[in-house]
Amino acid sequence: MALIVQKYGGTSVANLDRIAHVAGRVIAGRSAGNDMVVVLSAMSGETDRLIKLAKKINPNPNERELDVLLSTGEQVTVALLAMMLSDRGVPARSYLGHQVKIVTDSSFTKARITDIDRRLIKDELEQGTVVIVAGFQGVDGNGNITTLGRGGSDTTAVALAAALSADLCEIYTDVEGVYTTDPNICPNARKLEKISYDEMLEMASLGAKVLHTRSVEFAKKYNVPVVVKSSFTDGTGTIVTGEDKDMEQVVVSGIAYNVNEAKLTIRGVPDRPGIASRIFGTIAEEDIIVDMIIQNVGADNSADITFTVPKADVKKARQILERIRGELGAKEVIADENIAKVSIVGVGMRSHAGIASQMFKALASEGINILMISTSEIKVSCAIERKYTELAVRVLHDTFGLGGEEPRVEKEEL
Amino acid sequence: MALIVQKYGGTSVANLDRIAHVAGRVIAGRSAGNDMVVVLSAMSGETDRLIKLAKKINPNPNERELDVLLSTGEQVTVALLAMMLSDRGVPARSYLGHQVKIVTDSSFTKARITDIDRRLIKDELEQGTVVIVAGFQGVDGNGNITTLGRGGSDTTAVALAAALSADLCEIYTDVEGVYTTDPNICPNARKLEKISYDEMLEMASLGAKVLHTRSVEFAKKYNVPVVVKSSFTDGTGTIVTGEDKDMEQVVVSGIAYNVNEAKLTIRGVPDRPGIASRIFGTIAEEDIIVDMIIQNVGADNSADITFTVPKADVKKARQILERIRGELGAKEVIADENIAKVSIVGVGMRSHAGIASQMFKALASEGINILMISTSEIKVSCAIERKYTELAVRVLHDTFGLGGEEPRVEKEEL
Repeated sequence: MALIVQKYGGTSVANLDRIAHVAGRVIAGRSAGNDMVVVLSAMSGETDRLIKLAKKINPNPNERELDVLLSTGEQVTVALLAMMLSDRGVPARSYLGHQVKIVTDSSFTKARITDIDRRLIKDELEQGTVVIVAGFQGVDGNGNITTLGRGGSDTTAVALAAALSADLCEIYTDVEGVYTTDPNICPNARKLEKISYDEMLEMASLGAKVLHTRSVEFAKKYNVPVVVKSSFTDGTGTIVTGEDKDMEQVVVSGIAYNVNEAKLTIRGVPDRPGIASRIFGTIAEEDIIVDMIIQNVGADNSADITFTVPKADVKKARQILERIRGELGAKEVIADENIAKVSIVGVGMRSHAGIASQMFKALASEGINILMISTSEIKVSCAIERKYTELAVRVLHDTFGLGGEEPRVEKEEL
Repeated sequence: MALIVQKYGGTSVANLDRIAHVAGRVIAGRSAGNDMVVVLSAMSGETDRLIKLAKKINPNPNERELDVLLSTGEQVTVALLAMMLSDRGVPARSYLGHQVKIVTDSSFTKARITDIDRRLIKDELEQGTVVIVAGFQGVDGNGNITTLGRGGSDTTAVALAAALSADLCEIYTDVEGVYTTDPNICPNARKLEKISYDEMLEMASLGAKVLHTRSVEFAKKYNVPVVVKSSFTDGTGTIVTGEDKDMEQVVVSGIAYNVNEAKLTIRGVPDRPGIASRIFGTIAEEDIIVDMIIQNVGADNSADITFTVPKADVKKARQILERIRGELGAKEVIADENIAKVSIVGVGMRSHAGIASQMFKALASEGINILMISTSEIKVSCAIERKYTELAVRVLHDTFGLGGEEPRVEKEEL
């Protein structure tokens, strides 16, 4: 007997038929003798509908209230699944973030889980109840409802799996698993049998939509075995797990891209100590996440500082820069939303030289200009003009030999 | 400076335009120097939509989960109003039942408020915040979400007004106030300037939809001054208040009707002590409210017991009767959903004789057969065939002289 945490995404609970299908899977898991904890997203489209409603009031609606609004989406699906299981004679109860309690900080719309109370769930499981938890939501220290950001239900599931020392965390979605890249761009993209936490972390934070970044951080930190699979088919999915020797043999495991960042440049900043800290300190105070940063110093001893932020935050970031521009003695602030970031990821990079230059060469061969570069131990990212996104992904996917039928590592029995 | 609790019903928050209108009213109240607490219903149609969804799963869905589902409706509207007020520079915060806390018993779908924690709201009001509370919902002693039954937001508002010792509780709806009867049936129905708690209580429990019965009980118990008025116009509405001398001069204040009850008859019950207690005890255990009861003893020493229950509970009640029929030695159980109850209400009845017979005569004059009768100090109700409902209401409205332009009591300045 095992404790399994299952998470079903929006398309898997899009309507009553789909929820009935989920109920079937949950009952199968329980009939096999497992303790079941089920985390649900809102019906697909519902969160967008609610955001649209809020934005009609104000493009930047009050974030505390936005979380009150958005958290209703998951409340609907957990209640419906609990009703369905009850209807089939399976004891089941829905729980919201504040009931569990899933405690978070108070960063509305992008809160981080700080603690999970496991007592209530443990008690329910002991009594044979299927515990259904609303994903995406938590409660802060003052009892306010918070949400974890888009895709946050993955994090709810993995954090619960960690807190409960679950044997497995299954993330059910509408794709077969994690692919070498977006199959919509590269039809010959290959599903990976397994991927390391670190690679998955890079892929997720670089724009691969299959898992929420924070969920992978949790999985890595608490060594939670995660499987990403489709709720529409019976495939084996992709295992996200600790690194092994097979993985190191492969230089590049996947290609990610992200078109949701924008570039900000503050021109003509006097080149003196403390300027960068002033800029990025002010930006950080507003909870805006900065990704790539570059700084050029020109002949006249003044610098241009360029960095990227999520598109959703570009207006706010620009306002901040305009506010401190005078104080800094800078010339002007320029925003460019017309960019994309393409990245290559692989743990094998650690032990292979020349990977970055191979990437630059491949992009240059297609006439794609590189605007910014950033690297880490296991990834290289380039900002490019947005119009080249698909072309860049395809040329990199080919360059690093990711396409085709050949599996990257030998298949294993799951 | 006064403390005002305002409640807005579903049609008053049906869309963003209507909610903006509510925001305007709230701001006006606050600008006049009042502390404002605002209770909202779900958008009109939303609760029905959610119930329909649940009933597709099971006609009698799990009630704990139904409450989790239904409570989302008010969560959406309170968040939207709070956003709107914030957007206009007015400090405002939404609170759900479990946040306030509005503590109830655990009778899901028809819970009763047992306690309200006033500290959080008092603190917020002291800081000048407009407090927006989700109507209709509460939390039981175990942290489960509960709902108060259809129209329960009225009760939330009046109970909050009582707990906070508010100066006034304004119930905003889509009609001008409380009428002598349903204007859809009697075009010459008259808006009442004021009505006593007791009369309102009878009117509400007899089917007049303008106020939730429990809300009037609260208002009476804690002597909360309530005004029912339209959010669409600027009328003075109807004051619901303690009894005064003017009211006693009027014999019948209003005509109510209810087509949401069904009649159950258990035939051929042996006429021996304890039978009625066995029947109604079992029904009560299932939380089904019984309204009218009659019992006839026939020549063969067996009795027929007939009673009415809400239509929503008729299946469940019938199942209970069938279950205990053998044990009771009864012949058969008959259900009839084709009935209506018409009632005359007025505090003046206490000091006037012959009112009931006047009612029976009026119905007889139109050939309407009376199936059941029940009376109290200030009302007489008759169950009749449903098809006669409108005819009966009109003849009673005329018989007791309720139509026309003449106000029932002199108009007062509010």
